[in-house]
Amino acid sequence: MRLAIVGASGYAGLELLRLLSGRPDDEVVLVTSRQEAGQPLCSFFPALSSMANYDDLVLEEPRDLGGRADVFFLATGHGVAMGLASGLLASGAKVIDLSADFRLKDPAVFARWYAPHQAPELLPLAVYGLPEIHGPEIARASLVANPGCYPTSVILALAPVLGAGLADLSRPLVADSKSGVTGAGRGALISNSFCEVQDNFKTYKTVGHRHTPEMIQELSLLAGQDVRLAFTPHLLPINRGILSTIYLALKPGAGLAALRELYLDFYKDSRFVRTRPLGHDPQTADVRGTNFCDLGLFHDPESGLFKIVSVIDNLCRGAAGQAVANLNLMTGRPECLGLGLPALRP
Amino acid sequence: MRLAIVGASGYAGLELLRLLSGRPDDEVVLVTSRQEAGQPLCSFFPALSSMANYDDLVLEEPRDLGGRADVFFLATGHGVAMGLASGLLASGAKVIDLSADFRLKDPAVFARWYAPHQAPELLPLAVYGLPEIHGPEIARASLVANPGCYPTSVILALAPVLGAGLADLSRPLVADSKSGVTGAGRGALISNSFCEVQDNFKTYKTVGHRHTPEMIQELSLLAGQDVRLAFTPHLLPINRGILSTIYLALKPGAGLAALRELYLDFYKDSRFVRTRPLGHDPQTADVRGTNFCDLGLFHDPESGLFKIVSVIDNLCRGAAGQAVANLNLMTGRPECLGLGLPALRP
Amino acid sequence: MRLAIVGASGYAGLELLRLLSGRPDDEVVLVTSRQEAGQPLCSFFPALSSMANYDDLVLEEPRDLGGRADVFFLATGHGVAMGLASGLLASGAKVIDLSADFRLKDPAVFARWYAPHQAPELLPLAVYGLPEIHGPEIARASLVANPGCYPTSVILALAPVLGAGLADLSRPLVADSKSGVTGAGRGALISNSFCEVQDNFKTYKTVGHRHTPEMIQELSLLAGQDVRLAFTPHLLPINRGILSTIYLALKPGAGLAALRELYLDFYKDSRFVRTRPLGHDPQTADVRGTNFCDLGLFHDPESGLFKIVSVIDNLCRGAAGQAVANLNLMTGRPECLGLGLPALRP
Amino acid sequence: MRLAIVGASGYAGLELLRLLSGRPDDEVVLVTSRQEAGQPLCSFFPALSSMANYDDLVLEEPRDLGGRADVFFLATGHGVAMGLASGLLASGAKVIDLSADFRLKDPAVFARWYAPHQAPELLPLAVYGLPEIHGPEIARASLVANPGCYPTSVILALAPVLGAGLADLSRPLVADSKSGVTGAGRGALISNSFCEVQDNFKTYKTVGHRHTPEMIQELSLLAGQDVRLAFTPHLLPINRGILSTIYLALKPGAGLAALRELYLDFYKDSRFVRTRPLGHDPQTADVRGTNFCDLGLFHDPESGLFKIVSVIDNLCRGAAGQAVANLNLMTGRPECLGLGLPALRP
Repeated sequence: MRLAIVGASGYAGLELLRLLSGRPDDEVVLVTSRQEAGQPLCSFFPALSSMANYDDLVLEEPRDLGGRADVFFLATGHGVAMGLASGLLASGAKVIDLSADFRLKDPAVFARWYAPHQAPELLPLAVYGLPEIHGPEIARASLVANPGCYPTSVILALAPVLGAGLADLSRPLVADSKSGVTGAGRGALISNSFCEVQDNFKTYKTVGHRHTPEMIQELSLLAGQDVRLAFTPHLLPINRGILSTIYLALKPGAGLAALRELYLDFYKDSRFVRTRPLGHDPQTADVRGTNFCDLGLFHDPESGLFKIVSVIDNLCRGAAGQAVANLNLMTGRPECLGLGLPALRP
Repeated sequence: MRLAIVGASGYAGLELLRLLSGRPDDEVVLVTSRQEAGQPLCSFFPALSSMANYDDLVLEEPRDLGGRADVFFLATGHGVAMGLASGLLASGAKVIDLSADFRLKDPAVFARWYAPHQAPELLPLAVYGLPEIHGPEIARASLVANPGCYPTSVILALAPVLGAGLADLSRPLVADSKSGVTGAGRGALISNSFCEVQDNFKTYKTVGHRHTPEMIQELSLLAGQDVRLAFTPHLLPINRGILSTIYLALKPGAGLAALRELYLDFYKDSRFVRTRPLGHDPQTADVRGTNFCDLGLFHDPESGLFKIVSVIDNLCRGAAGQAVANLNLMTGRPECLGLGLPALRP
Repeated sequence: MRLAIVGASGYAGLELLRLLSGRPDDEVVLVTSRQEAGQPLCSFFPALSSMANYDDLVLEEPRDLGGRADVFFLATGHGVAMGLASGLLASGAKVIDLSADFRLKDPAVFARWYAPHQAPELLPLAVYGLPEIHGPEIARASLVANPGCYPTSVILALAPVLGAGLADLSRPLVADSKSGVTGAGRGALISNSFCEVQDNFKTYKTVGHRHTPEMIQELSLLAGQDVRLAFTPHLLPINRGILSTIYLALKPGAGLAALRELYLDFYKDSRFVRTRPLGHDPQTADVRGTNFCDLGLFHDPESGLFKIVSVIDNLCRGAAGQAVANLNLMTGRPECLGLGLPALRP
Repeated sequence: MRLAIVGASGYAGLELLRLLSGRPDDEVVLVTSRQEAGQPLCSFFPALSSMANYDDLVLEEPRDLGGRADVFFLATGHGVAMGLASGLLASGAKVIDLSADFRLKDPAVFARWYAPHQAPELLPLAVYGLPEIHGPEIARASLVANPGCYPTSVILALAPVLGAGLADLSRPLVADSKSGVTGAGRGALISNSFCEVQDNFKTYKTVGHRHTPEMIQELSLLAGQDVRLAFTPHLLPINRGILSTIYLALKPGAGLAALRELYLDFYKDSRFVRTRPLGHDPQTADVRGTNFCDLGLFHDPESGLFKIVSVIDNLCRGAAGQAVANLNLMTGRPECLGLGLPALRP
């Protein structure tokens, strides 16, 4: 299978190249970058030198892409994929978009949070690429919208309890999320510079983060009713990792042990979700570089609330790793192909 | 004024020594450490060498303390201060205890969260040392219970809104708090080792952290009614700093601009609480090494909830800095004496 | 092939388990730990859960090891392997020792730097396990002494130039080395605690580090004459990585371009040494989690000296990864089997 | 005294503002920034709010500066000060330049490393502002060239031994230096972004760093002969701190104990140089936020070389702190005024 990465000079592109370097039956044949076109891939990313065929690749302008590959990963900023997808699909290729362009089903919602959608006719075709929730549809899809990193951590944490109708939705759910800096992409910004982030911690976009409607869409779908959500992102001084701490009330009668059984059952066929033993605190380092989502479940007797703690690697599970899982499903291979590596710890 | 630090070999002791090094009218005359007794202070903490009279001090066994100083800072683990305080007070000294021993008013609550109290007769004398809330009582006190770091960040964030009766207390408040590693003290633990903390993030004591009853006590006092609280501590890979993200519903009619006015008014005479402009995200680095608490106020239209973000330096404002402010108040000096330094940034 | 890891609860053990998790023809059948015996492996290292057969393994006391496996990795502190090796070899097993016990050929030198050797009769059998230098002997060995992390970085940097007789050895070589904290192992020490290491940098064992004689032994062997070396270790606030900056004078006539050709030629069959283009600065992150050694060559016109910069991952190439390469060579498999992964970057 | 900071929006500017915030007899009356002109100072640096008169200051365009202040700190990029100094001096002001513009005495050397000098007539007036070496000249100067950060760490480490004629200068000195990221200034560069620096370590400008001629000038002056130097800078993943490890041979007969006596004597009147006890390893955290330089002296019996380890805070001692010390000397105040604070540790 010939693979292409559009937007290969960002961190999601780099992570895709890392994960795709050892696949016997696939080959990355095309890497593009508007800004870095002309550079040999391994001059730009020396870590990749002497891996796979990477020493032979040169970053190209993203032009005349149709026909160049069988599967395209679009790892660009928001707004680019909606211009490219139609042509690529017409060329017979499959498309996995890592941007937000095809995640929201309702173009009016998209317009409110981003900008008017340029290819609304594709939205019904696009499948939200969270394998544990939409696996069968992904397997049949030509266009997959790879989920955002925060939504991945929050939706996986809530899917079983919402699906079972156990949550008290009369009040808002609270998702307090903390992300590593790769979530902001590879860019030269003062706010992401070492001296501003190191030994520091803060909220950002404390209200109104664009991942909010994506979460609300999928959580409401799971719950079968409108869900209200208070979501707060924070910037952690780490490279990779998201931890979401979620607060909710359950309907009367629900207990912690039963809740854990529900989670174990819901994810019993899911290679990549690990529901931890009661009392165990998930930590981001345990999923570093992997496609895992680790979940911890807690009941707080002081407040009566339940707490769900969810950790993923935002760059792997929250972007490139999930995209590779989607590639696997879309091409009839096992979901975990090339994703079997344990965490790099410490 | 002769000052003594009992438990001077921990990080709170070190921070006290940093803050007390430049005071013209006070002198640290006694530093004790059970574990490090016999060591010259500046061999143990080379950063202090050639500061004040510190080259002349030797860490001593904590014995026969009465009469050695006018004010004692007790910076030991929980359970020690309740054995020492009575004797020190009898010697005429003032006592500022940085442990939890005198923070909880109700010995039954103390017993449930710690152990049976050994000096319950002193509890009515002890003043909870949060200057913005209990300033006048502190000024008259001989025994001050220096607040915990998490409670300092949470109580300062909620005092105005609870005091004004604006919060909807029919549901639990949520306080999602993240702390730097100095909060765990100076000890040789695998869980605090660099390789376990660096590039990592996790919850710990996800339910049942001992600072919970302290917060509930003070918040209920402020609110004039019982307050329920869901509190979750997290371990940040930074040395210093706590950020608490607090979620609450307000009673109908309360708006963000009015809320900010309320905070500005409540803290108008408080040198160390800075209510930030609307839209500004507080960050821990802006208070590093200082006694400040910075507050950010937000209203989230998606969920209808309000968010209050509070940052302090857990070691300074959350321990030694607040203890120095209490020293100032207890001895008739301006609260901010020796605490006027700006943050070390970056 | 049945594999055993003695001392599996340390970081080298964990790294071995990470690297060995995906091998189709080998299985880790035994993991031991004196301190943690009785613990299920994946309770102790949650990052390993659902990997290979690891959920079925329990950390055992290191007793009656003979016959339990075909290859033993000894990842214990110094002094243990010399007591175990003889019995394991007698059982027909192969032994890869990650400690210093079999690295020094001369028992008198060992005694001076460590302690009297308890199994000097095995020293002639032991092969110094640096594949680029001793590959063929490793392939025939039953007992391999896995090199130290600092020596790996320094010897690979100097082998070509010393082997070619180009260095001016009338003066000492200077190797200024900086290591991540995993090099100190997994232990509860104040000096390795987060608050002491984070945002800090220092030398340690500034003279007399025990890796010195190991480097002198191998460098002198390569040079065919006694080599003097000034070696200084430093502690970097990173988890993984060693960077060595080496200063040397070359004999008259040697130039930078020719030097690079020499290196490219010396390492032309070595999958894991990457001599960088002139002007390129190696960085530790480019080898994080890999078995690579990246080399940069520089000539400084101000001083006339040459500088060689060498980076490895101390835990992978400097310990477990090199041990797996040795396993591969000792069992007739390609050196790079299971070591093909690119760096985790960023 | 009215103080002005030209280039106040960089990290050196911020550090000057931190250090100058508590001086009773001086006031910062002017802060300029070409890029951020028009912004209230405390919107730009929230950490400074409610300090001194800072809430009243607005960043201004650097225009018509003459007469606005009695002392000007020039904290701009190289090339700006040489255009401003003449006018400021003519207005009767004193000038402390933190850039490289006036550090090199020989305009030909300046031209080779930077660009042709635009104000060579001022070079004879400028005093190299290292107080321990040039204190009396600084006290009489109107124009002080504040030393570079690397040179400060290296020159203080070598001054006593070079001044005493004990070093064997027949071979190059080696200075292997490692700096925190603030040394690169406050700018939006990919190479200084968190994800590129965190958990990483590298050399940069491995040959030809511009601080080299400055070191050679001052070291040669101290030695009374030309000194050759191999200098290598490295980028540490810390905010503040430089550690230089220096290798040199001494002339026959020189021993370690005598060397330490020499250093203690040389610096006996210097408040800010602390020669550590033998065997003690200096660390950057012990000088964080201070004007100190800590020195460790070692003799390596393996190689016969001596090692000198020097640590400073590159932003304080290596820039703003030294500038404040120079301000003190130039205005007849004690060198340590406003610089008495201990390190922020941890």
